[in-house]
Amino acid sequence: MSLPRESPAPRGRRPGAPDTKAAILAAARHGFAAAGFARTSVRAIAAEAGVDPALVHHYFGTKDELFLAALELPVDPRKVLLPAIAAGGVDDVAERMVRAFLSVWDDPEIRVRLVAVFRGILDAEGERLLRDGFIPVVLEPVGAALGIDRPELRMPLVASQMVGLIMLRYVIGVEPLASLSGDDVVAIYAPTVQRYLTGDLP
Amino acid sequence: MSLPRESPAPRGRRPGAPDTKAAILAAARHGFAAAGFARTSVRAIAAEAGVDPALVHHYFGTKDELFLAALELPVDPRKVLLPAIAAGGVDDVAERMVRAFLSVWDDPEIRVRLVAVFRGILDAEGERLLRDGFIPVVLEPVGAALGIDRPELRMPLVASQMVGLIMLRYVIGVEPLASLSGDDVVAIYAPTVQRYLTGDLP
Repeated sequence: MSLPRESPAPRGRRPGAPDTKAAILAAARHGFAAAGFARTSVRAIAAEAGVDPALVHHYFGTKDELFLAALELPVDPRKVLLPAIAAGGVDDVAERMVRAFLSVWDDPEIRVRLVAVFRGILDAEGERLLRDGFIPVVLEPVGAALGIDRPELRMPLVASQMVGLIMLRYVIGVEPLASLSGDDVVAIYAPTVQRYLTGDLP
Repeated sequence: MSLPRESPAPRGRRPGAPDTKAAILAAARHGFAAAGFARTSVRAIAAEAGVDPALVHHYFGTKDELFLAALELPVDPRKVLLPAIAAGGVDDVAERMVRAFLSVWDDPEIRVRLVAVFRGILDAEGERLLRDGFIPVVLEPVGAALGIDRPELRMPLVASQMVGLIMLRYVIGVEPLASLSGDDVVAIYAPTVQRYLTGDLP
């Protein structure tokens, strides 16, 4: 798969911690992509990396956190979105969520790395990571934090708009979307996101 | 680039019409992807294919039509969208446009071919085809047919929602979006598209 790697991925137990962490991440990426997030256990990842499962938890915490580490996102989307959600009520949460989104994607250095991750999503393995991993690890906790009804439908609706915005504004660079100010992006997209989060649905 | 080809792309003048057409299409794909739609002339494509420009027009019509032929879309999006637009007023045109979109994408045979084209968009060359070709050849004529103000902003906004829907419903297959009925898709997305087409913008 084409997610960026900081170093070649060694296999088996190594004496140095950096190699061990890299081996765990490589095993995690492989396992999540091949079998899906739900069907890949920390125990299986540890076995493939040749380490004890306790070491996986020591380095990476929970399985959710290991998944996000394996994606090599430059930021944890939960750490960006959850404070924005908690900062006010749900009736105008979309504006805060879109502003939080822009605070990450409009940062040139972060954007370069996010675009690289995003391109990997259209690999067959990357698709599986998004479908089986990103949704339970990121979208479901965010939906739960929002306290909305039918989060299992509403959060993918939000994702369907934000993925298209990412494609046109950041990945492909379609004008005038690529040059819109952050305020204009909020004015255009926050009402859409708000309707998907709290509006009437069929 | 990874757009599907029906046959290997021969170069230079060939005696048989199928080879000549294939040579023209290969030259068109190469030219549009390398230099962009606007900067690639029919004359230059004809020269690369080793044929007379009149033959290009004979086989493919206008440069717009040659571009769509080079994309190898299974349907001409203008022929799907323009009748839907003409069938009523602009105040409820989004519902007709989303239904026209679904009539194509929800057809299993067409969908397989469209997904293949769509995956090619995330190639570097495919991005250029979308940015420099699809917008002037498809989005601008549709915007003109709608008779809306600021089509140069409104049509990319519509595209940003429909591209995300394509990604989640058809390419990645995120549930429950992948299984929603057409009526539910219309109920959810037509208001978004209508607002982008005729609502207040910043």
